[in-house]
Amino acid sequence: MANTFRTIWTTEDRFVEVIDQRELPHKVVVVKLKTYRDAENAIKNMTVRGAPLIGATAAYGIYLAVREMNEKGLSKEFLDEAFSALRASRPTAINLFWALDKMKAALENCDDYLKISWKEAARIVEEDIEICRMIGVHGLPLLEEISKKKKGEAVNILTHCNAGMLGCIEWGTVTSPIYQAHEKGIKIHVWVDETRPRNQGSNLTAFELTKHGIEHTLIVDNTGGHLMQHGLVDIVLVGTDRTTRNGDVANKIGTYLKALAAKDNKIPFYVALPSTTLDMRIRDGLSEIPIEKRDQNEVRYVQGLSKKGEIEQILICPETTKALNYGFDVTPSRLITGLITERGICSPTEEGICSLFPEYS
Amino acid sequence: MANTFRTIWTTEDRFVEVIDQRELPHKVVVVKLKTYRDAENAIKNMTVRGAPLIGATAAYGIYLAVREMNEKGLSKEFLDEAFSALRASRPTAINLFWALDKMKAALENCDDYLKISWKEAARIVEEDIEICRMIGVHGLPLLEEISKKKKGEAVNILTHCNAGMLGCIEWGTVTSPIYQAHEKGIKIHVWVDETRPRNQGSNLTAFELTKHGIEHTLIVDNTGGHLMQHGLVDIVLVGTDRTTRNGDVANKIGTYLKALAAKDNKIPFYVALPSTTLDMRIRDGLSEIPIEKRDQNEVRYVQGLSKKGEIEQILICPETTKALNYGFDVTPSRLITGLITERGICSPTEEGICSLFPEYS
Repeated sequence: MANTFRTIWTTEDRFVEVIDQRELPHKVVVVKLKTYRDAENAIKNMTVRGAPLIGATAAYGIYLAVREMNEKGLSKEFLDEAFSALRASRPTAINLFWALDKMKAALENCDDYLKISWKEAARIVEEDIEICRMIGVHGLPLLEEISKKKKGEAVNILTHCNAGMLGCIEWGTVTSPIYQAHEKGIKIHVWVDETRPRNQGSNLTAFELTKHGIEHTLIVDNTGGHLMQHGLVDIVLVGTDRTTRNGDVANKIGTYLKALAAKDNKIPFYVALPSTTLDMRIRDGLSEIPIEKRDQNEVRYVQGLSKKGEIEQILICPETTKALNYGFDVTPSRLITGLITERGICSPTEEGICSLFPEYS
Repeated sequence: MANTFRTIWTTEDRFVEVIDQRELPHKVVVVKLKTYRDAENAIKNMTVRGAPLIGATAAYGIYLAVREMNEKGLSKEFLDEAFSALRASRPTAINLFWALDKMKAALENCDDYLKISWKEAARIVEEDIEICRMIGVHGLPLLEEISKKKKGEAVNILTHCNAGMLGCIEWGTVTSPIYQAHEKGIKIHVWVDETRPRNQGSNLTAFELTKHGIEHTLIVDNTGGHLMQHGLVDIVLVGTDRTTRNGDVANKIGTYLKALAAKDNKIPFYVALPSTTLDMRIRDGLSEIPIEKRDQNEVRYVQGLSKKGEIEQILICPETTKALNYGFDVTPSRLITGLITERGICSPTEEGICSLFPEYS
């Protein structure tokens, strides 16, 4: 991908570095992860976020645990602890478990834990990049078609949260067709949902679209319905943290409301996903996907850049008012037009998913 | 109403005072309005907001113009200017035009402009208080019924923006049944939508519910759908800035999304309104109600209390990212269960409205 960077990389001394996404877009701070606890905390406190990037960070977390175990002469119990701790670091994104399972399988009956964990984590990262690239390849024709219908006028895409390269390693999921369309000279304009409470839209999506020269406009999460009512949205593209066998998706809280509005206004609503977010053991998203409840202060306070150029948090409600903070909601498959995966686009149904991924039949 | 205050009042020297609602909930600042320009600016810059309070402020603005005209020996053109300026101060709320029309009618062929304008503005204020009280009287049984069904467990009400006493003079529209239920000992819990971009929910609704001892929880605007999917909302109550003959309503941006979610989850969705928000000249809300577009910086910056205890505005997106800021959206009547007015509850249809307000037949 042209003019870009990665969200996670290794250093010469074989540690891992990530961008502290909590400081974006105002500051680009790089954090070095030296222990599995560092990786665990980076996931927990959202230094890194986004289902694929969480998976990659957890994978490197296992590598770091192995290194620590070797260097300190610790028993294998230490590694088991690392698996447990990383597995418990976030509850909703399924890639986390997928990546940890991959690492576990790679380490089974192997003779060089350090070498294998290093290689497997790198493989997970490279696989994610290729998966994301292919999501773009398959999603691109959707945008090309709209562009053709509009005779080259900008394709208006609405997105929620950040399913961009910042949530992955490169390309992103939702942003992959966008970046590929842009590279092909297709005119694109993105409506960026602010995405309260953590503002991943205004902080991260706006940041990476700016970096890649994609035209975009920030809107509050309340605005999408109005834009759709007035023909200002051609397509909705969102990511997912977990996708069920029935095609239900758990994505950032508020996605469900946008899906309802898209349905009500007959606007195509697509979910872009690496197959690593598929959780084929479950069917009903609403009853079966655990939804993370986070600290109420993420709602009560907003972070941004003060007039003095410092990153500050300000209180936006009365001192005594309490808040409730769910991280995700479930969009039922009946509201989804299609799933864009690395193997093509399918209907959000068991049949659709299994037509592309027969290994799950 | 017990333990309360008003949002607009007159002083001993016959000027007008209002609370600067832009500083709430962190500071209670009183602003004195001495000229019609003061009133116009208070409406424009949202020192005062909420359809009924805008109307009352405009009415007193006319009184202030008359006073100025008399004191400075100006011609009647000055008063005409005041009418024009106040009429142009906000575009969506219909009460503004209603109040100005009332003032104009009162001043026609009268001999004492000062006395009549003073009296008529006061009458508009008293009328609003009584209308709001009656909305509560008619809305209360809805809450009583839910409370009975839940055997006294708290009635969970979701509301968007502030259709509270702060948007009116006393009681409020949405809050009137809530306050009356609370006074009767009915257990109430309110989900308060933050209401980006101006956070009228977290700033104003949370403030007045706190003042009145009503249990409430702040949520981001994205959360309502999830709560409804999980049975955590018993009823949605919102206000309106303009209501058409067909029963479509224009309310704070994002209301439409909540109405869609209520419909999808079979949750009653009621709109509380004084008949002064009826605009019986128009039918189709989507095409006929003008929607205010406001400054993009209301989206790009968020205001709150800094750690130093100062009211600050922080930037929440990249410097160069632009934003779009619509103030309202239209909820079509098909998504509304009923309209709660000062004369009773009716269906959101021409027939329903005219059954309560036969003068519009």
